[in-house]
Amino acid sequence: MSEIGGRTIDGFLAQLASDAPTPGGGAVAGLVAANGAALIQMVCNLTIGKAAYEEVDERMREIDAEAGEARSAFLDVADRDATAFDGVMAAFKMPKETDAQKAERSHAIQAGYATAAVVPMECAKRAAALMSLAAEVTRIGNAQAASDGSSAAQCLSAAVWCATYNVEINAAALKDQAKAQALRDEVSGLRASTQALLDTANEAFWERI
Amino acid sequence: MSEIGGRTIDGFLAQLASDAPTPGGGAVAGLVAANGAALIQMVCNLTIGKAAYEEVDERMREIDAEAGEARSAFLDVADRDATAFDGVMAAFKMPKETDAQKAERSHAIQAGYATAAVVPMECAKRAAALMSLAAEVTRIGNAQAASDGSSAAQCLSAAVWCATYNVEINAAALKDQAKAQALRDEVSGLRASTQALLDTANEAFWERI
Repeated sequence: MSEIGGRTIDGFLAQLASDAPTPGGGAVAGLVAANGAALIQMVCNLTIGKAAYEEVDERMREIDAEAGEARSAFLDVADRDATAFDGVMAAFKMPKETDAQKAERSHAIQAGYATAAVVPMECAKRAAALMSLAAEVTRIGNAQAASDGSSAAQCLSAAVWCATYNVEINAAALKDQAKAQALRDEVSGLRASTQALLDTANEAFWERI
Repeated sequence: MSEIGGRTIDGFLAQLASDAPTPGGGAVAGLVAANGAALIQMVCNLTIGKAAYEEVDERMREIDAEAGEARSAFLDVADRDATAFDGVMAAFKMPKETDAQKAERSHAIQAGYATAAVVPMECAKRAAALMSLAAEVTRIGNAQAASDGSSAAQCLSAAVWCATYNVEINAAALKDQAKAQALRDEVSGLRASTQALLDTANEAFWERI
C-alpha cells in the first residue's frame, strides 16, 4: 500500500500547490501514469465477459493483470520521488575545508545527481512500455470504451514527459558528459516511441467511433 | 467542495479501473487538469517572496489565484462528468410505440448527445486557456521549479485530449451534420493551440535548465 494512495485528492493537490519542494512534477508523473493504468483496466473490465468480445477475453484478462501491477508500481514511484533528491541534498551539506573533502563532496554530489535520475527514468520507461497496451485495448477492447483507452495513452504520454523533465534536470548537473548524453539519448528514444504509440492509439480511437 | 476531492487516490483509481461506466476518461480529464493547475500554483508559491524574483512577485500572485480557481472548477467538472450522459440514457428509455413517440424520442436522444458534449468541451476550453499560464510560469517563475511548470503544461494538454475524445464521441452520434462539424472544428482549434503552447513551455524549460 503506497503512502500517496491513502491520501485524499484534495489533500494531495493542496500539498502539490504549496511551496513544499515535494510532491512536484515527479510525483505527478507517477499519479498520472497510475490513472492511465487504471483506464486500461477499465477498458478490459468493460470487455471481459461480453459475448461480442469473446475472442479477446483471455487477452483482456492478461492486460488487466499487467496494468494492475503497473498501477501499484506507479504509486510506489510517486512515493519514492520525494526522496530521490535526498542524496544530492545530503552531499551539498558535506564538509569542504580541505582539498580532499572538496573532492569527496563533489564526487558525492555527482553520484547524487546520477541516482536522482534513476526513479524518474524507471517511471518513464514503465509508462512508455504500457503505452502499447493502451493502444491495444483502444483497438480491440469494447468500442464504447475507446475514449477511455485513448485517454489512458494520453495520461501515459504525459507521465513520460513529466518524469523525463526530471531526468534532464539531473543530466544537466552531471560533469560526466558521456553519462549525461546517454541519459538524454534514452529520454529522446522514450519520447519518440511514446509519440508513435500515441498516434496509434488516436488512429484506433477514430476508427472505432 | 467537490465529491471527487474527498475521495482517496486508491479509492478513485479502484473505481476507475472497474467496469462501472463512470468515472472514465472524462473524470480523468478533470483530475489531471486539476493536477496541472496545482503545479502552476506550486511554481508561483516557490517564486513569491524570493528576492531574486521580486519583479514577477505580483504576477505570480495573480497567476496563483487564477490557477487556484481553475483547480476547483476542474474537480467540479470531474464530478459533473458522471451525469453528463444521463440525458442520453433517459432518452433511450422513452416510449417508441407511435410515430409521434418515435419522433419525440429521437429528438430527445439528439438533444441528449448535444448536451453531453457541453461538460467535456468546457473542461477542454478551460484547460487549453490555462496552458498559457503554465508556459508563463515556466519562463518567468523560479528556475528550480521549471520542470514543475512544464509538467503542468503536459497535464493540461493531456486533459484537453481526454476531454475532447468525449466531445468527438457525442459529435459522431449527432444527425445534425453542421452542429457535429462545428464541434469537431472547435476540438481541432483547441488541440492546435494546446500543441503550440506545449512547445512554448518545453522551449522555456530547456532554456532554463
